[in-house]
Amino acid sequence: MHVRGAGLIGCAAAYGMYLSLRNLSPTSNMQQVRECLEHASQQLRATRPTAVNLRVGVEKILQAVETALGQSEGDGGQQAAEEAARQEAVRITDDAEFCRRIGEAGAEILQQLYERLFGCADFSMPLRMSVLTHCNAGWLAFASGLQIGVRFVAQVDETRPRFTSISCLELQGKHGVAHTVIADNTGGHLMRTGLVDVVITGADRVSSCGDACNKIGTYLKALAARDNNLPFYVALPSSTIDWRLKDGADIPIEQRGDDEVKYAEGLCEDGKRRKVLLTPQSSAAGNWAFDVTPSRLVTGLLTERGLAEASEKGLAALFPEALPLESCFGCCSTPLELGQADRT
Amino acid sequence: MHVRGAGLIGCAAAYGMYLSLRNLSPTSNMQQVRECLEHASQQLRATRPTAVNLRVGVEKILQAVETALGQSEGDGGQQAAEEAARQEAVRITDDAEFCRRIGEAGAEILQQLYERLFGCADFSMPLRMSVLTHCNAGWLAFASGLQIGVRFVAQVDETRPRFTSISCLELQGKHGVAHTVIADNTGGHLMRTGLVDVVITGADRVSSCGDACNKIGTYLKALAARDNNLPFYVALPSSTIDWRLKDGADIPIEQRGDDEVKYAEGLCEDGKRRKVLLTPQSSAAGNWAFDVTPSRLVTGLLTERGLAEASEKGLAALFPEALPLESCFGCCSTPLELGQADRT
Repeated sequence: MHVRGAGLIGCAAAYGMYLSLRNLSPTSNMQQVRECLEHASQQLRATRPTAVNLRVGVEKILQAVETALGQSEGDGGQQAAEEAARQEAVRITDDAEFCRRIGEAGAEILQQLYERLFGCADFSMPLRMSVLTHCNAGWLAFASGLQIGVRFVAQVDETRPRFTSISCLELQGKHGVAHTVIADNTGGHLMRTGLVDVVITGADRVSSCGDACNKIGTYLKALAARDNNLPFYVALPSSTIDWRLKDGADIPIEQRGDDEVKYAEGLCEDGKRRKVLLTPQSSAAGNWAFDVTPSRLVTGLLTERGLAEASEKGLAALFPEALPLESCFGCCSTPLELGQADRT
Repeated sequence: MHVRGAGLIGCAAAYGMYLSLRNLSPTSNMQQVRECLEHASQQLRATRPTAVNLRVGVEKILQAVETALGQSEGDGGQQAAEEAARQEAVRITDDAEFCRRIGEAGAEILQQLYERLFGCADFSMPLRMSVLTHCNAGWLAFASGLQIGVRFVAQVDETRPRFTSISCLELQGKHGVAHTVIADNTGGHLMRTGLVDVVITGADRVSSCGDACNKIGTYLKALAARDNNLPFYVALPSSTIDWRLKDGADIPIEQRGDDEVKYAEGLCEDGKRRKVLLTPQSSAAGNWAFDVTPSRLVTGLLTERGLAEASEKGLAALFPEALPLESCFGCCSTPLELGQADRT
């Protein structure tokens, strides 16, 4: 796995669709263009069932190409299709701007929290908030916090079995965040003993009701945050929201090979990267890659449009154009009245 | 760390005290015997602050020796002291009998649960209960379950950072239990999706009110069990109960070297055991070895005297001789009336 992060996977999928068209002969007809894209789409979708961004990336390309084909004449549509796919892939990549805005939303939350904790907004004081992260997307939410000077230390979960604590490398390399790596087992103890002030994670898919699917173990940290009255935020671009899906329990959970559990890979004393076997050779291992945190445990969703309550109503308020009206009845306790004052 | 398991650590400590006496000259006087034991006691206690069995083992030897010295005449007490220490150490080792009885208590619980789940006690059917364990002591609780034929599969947490999933080796080698190794992050997801029927863990110290201290991460699993209405049992010999301590929050939590987090050790392809670095070399790591699960999350304590409610009242009912009457006021919501009918 060389591409990580739900957003980036969506971009890679879009470019994959574009590249598949480039392999076609320039004389291909519309039928061949559609078959080529259909084949690429199926292959790409099968690689990551959990994150929704991949599906969204693929579908956006399909839509752009279909529009281009509709506007082109006769069988010469291959070039138009390729150009449409390229333009759409570039546009999806531009979602990087969303990350900056998510950071701004996170900064606001962190600033408020800092002031509440320490009674001041003087970030030059030697007072640090402690932020627990799980998997690598959480840093998005406090990148801007660093820029405005909020002082904090990150407690970085390893996020077994893939040890995606590599995030701490990113934190350190890109932003110089003080951090401590902890085993995934540790977050609950730190919360109980007052060593965590706020938990921020990323997401791979969020249902339209605010259930958040993220790297395995996120649910356990959310439970501990709730048990200790600590805020638990999920940071995500809106491309991670699956508007068609209400209940997070319906998100397909990717299961990976058991070698990720049975082995750990790292740097040996001799400078070589090696894998070591951690379990008996004959042991079976189970490798569920994600879990779902129900919205009742989520304090808020940090998006490129700001903070949303983790509920259908909260998401509809920020993204009124995305949610079909009829979907507002059923899973929420009170039916939504779209178009009301709480829309922004 | 070559000795594992709270009970075994208590035995090792008792033998350590005995061995320290053997190093004394046979002409040592009482003062020298006491100084020798005091020195050994301090050294041994410092090695494992969390598990109470070590302290209990040390104190039992001190008490036995003091009695022997009181009964001996003049300065010739060294031999009597040594013999008393040896006898007491052997007696502590005999606590192995307790493990068998804990297994019986576990078997009863598992049998009841099996019948409730599958509506029958026919263990020859291809129906298996799923038991999640955390760290290696849980198997005690279902060892006897196997003997009476209860069918189950164990979901074995790795228990980072020390990967004490080595327990699965024990399970497999000693009892042939079908098992799956899972990352510590995974238990919550399995509970939410109906893949766990009961959680059983061990303990390193239990307070007189039933708060259970065990390997780091136990608290997170207890929260998930509660959130999913699943039973959560802690298996322990009564030597693990700290009758002097009411509130589990007062249990000292051992912090170990950060190398256990930064590295993983296992078998390389070339057949050698090696350590690999998992984090950036410059990253700090935090290594808290235990956490405390509050009694409100514990369904019951499996002891050598059977199942106890995780409360001062529940423990006093099974171990009336251990709990001083005055300790029953304060931490419990209702004062205990010892000597009532609920004592056994």
